Amino acid sequence: MAKNIQSLERAAAMLRLLAGGERRLGLSDIASSLGLAKGTAHGILRTLQAEGFVEQDALSGRYQLGAELLRLGNSYLDVHELRARALVWTDDLARSSGESVHLGVLHQGGVLVVHHVFRPDDSRQVLEVGAMQPLYSTALGKVLCAFDPVAHSDALEAERRPLTPHTVTLPERFEAELSAVREKGWASDVEETWQGVAAVAAPIRDRHGMAVGAIAATGATERICDPEGAGDRGDGGPGRIRTDLVAAVRDCARAVSRDIGNGRF
Amino acid sequence: MAKNIQSLERAAAMLRLLAGGERRLGLSDIASSLGLAKGTAHGILRTLQAEGFVEQDALSGRYQLGAELLRLGNSYLDVHELRARALVWTDDLARSSGESVHLGVLHQGGVLVVHHVFRPDDSRQVLEVGAMQPLYSTALGKVLCAFDPVAHSDALEAERRPLTPHTVTLPERFEAELSAVREKGWASDVEETWQGVAAVAAPIRDRHGMAVGAIAATGATERICDPEGAGDRGDGGPGRIRTDLVAAVRDCARAVSRDIGNGRF
Repeated sequence: MAKNIQSLERAAAMLRLLAGGERRLGLSDIASSLGLAKGTAHGILRTLQAEGFVEQDALSGRYQLGAELLRLGNSYLDVHELRARALVWTDDLARSSGESVHLGVLHQGGVLVVHHVFRPDDSRQVLEVGAMQPLYSTALGKVLCAFDPVAHSDALEAERRPLTPHTVTLPERFEAELSAVREKGWASDVEETWQGVAAVAAPIRDRHGMAVGAIAATGATERICDPEGAGDRGDGGPGRIRTDLVAAVRDCARAVSRDIGNGRF
Repeated sequence: MAKNIQSLERAAAMLRLLAGGERRLGLSDIASSLGLAKGTAHGILRTLQAEGFVEQDALSGRYQLGAELLRLGNSYLDVHELRARALVWTDDLARSSGESVHLGVLHQGGVLVVHHVFRPDDSRQVLEVGAMQPLYSTALGKVLCAFDPVAHSDALEAERRPLTPHTVTLPERFEAELSAVREKGWASDVEETWQGVAAVAAPIRDRHGMAVGAIAATGATERICDPEGAGDRGDGGPGRIRTDLVAAVRDCARAVSRDIGNGRF
């Protein structure tokens, strides 16, 4: 197989470096982080700057991500067929459920949120499109792990650190959870990623039956879970996920699946 | 001055090509559009694909933008200081005015929307973060042209095609409009970009007094303009921009300016 282009790989590594952690870095930091000579790093940064992919702070001389990435990222959303097909259905789900709705796809060992419908109330909410969620603890992630072998192996390889006292981290418990998800066809996250937050998710399948994404309704545990009942977690915590919400999320995911060609003969 | 790296420039050109127009292109189209040999184009595309910047459709073999751009674009928003400082103020402006609020910066000869607060009602709205607006016809763009010499020359060089019957296209009228904007300190767009839509914008200035962005309130002409009065357009069209809205937008822009260090001695 032919080799990939080194300067491009290095440029991509720089952008990833600037996207994580510090976010504003000097030339020396960037060069040493990537094991490059300063001159080499500077040539790449200068080109990235000329193309708008990085910006240099006039005062400090430090580099940060550039506006062109936002413009291109927005174009990616426009071209994303799954998202386009899901817009109306997820909007309806948010309205009928009164909760916020996320559409996620597998990306680089995590869940990339490609669409987010706000909870239809007056509260201040932060748009999460473009944000990443962990595969192993979120409802979206568990659905992808259960139905997409690539996501599954990504999650097995990743460090599954506890995010709350309820995060499932042990391999055998994680596998049992995924088996249950496959069995019932949907996944939940009851305070396993964020304290006080619960979610329910279902898979979107394409014409080949492949799980290409997942849809989740997410909200305060008090609203997502039944106020009474033993609960799924079995530790005296909140009650079971509301059955009507599970049905609504699964209906929505099925509608989007049908729209992208699943179940057509 | 040292030369920029050719393979990087070509890769950026490919991403821009995929971000506009067709959006799903085959190898031959991409190579011929950029005047590259097929082998050269393929090497760049393969590397971009390995890095997640482009994706290839399994069925058609066509290329499109990749998810990594969305993730990086989102990171750009996180690092954008102006946007971070403007979040609360623009939220307040949307609440108090009842209209949608946009924060725009100059980018590649246009206005890049880096923040968008929805109109606080129940209506279906499309998020415009990452979208571009024309410099010469929008309220955001006119503010940037009036107070940022780079934006001004960008707008003069651009083709100013009429978007509605009210778009200002003639050079002398455009300059007169900008002089008026400089005089009064804010700009309006009454159905010059979109029929039925009006906007009012004011500049955000940094510690050096430079206009680094603009804030606009945008909505239906019937709400943004006074129901009575001769109107600014002078053609028997809608009335003047509501004075309370002008004051609110200017207050908001001043508050953000102060937050990024303007007017501190």
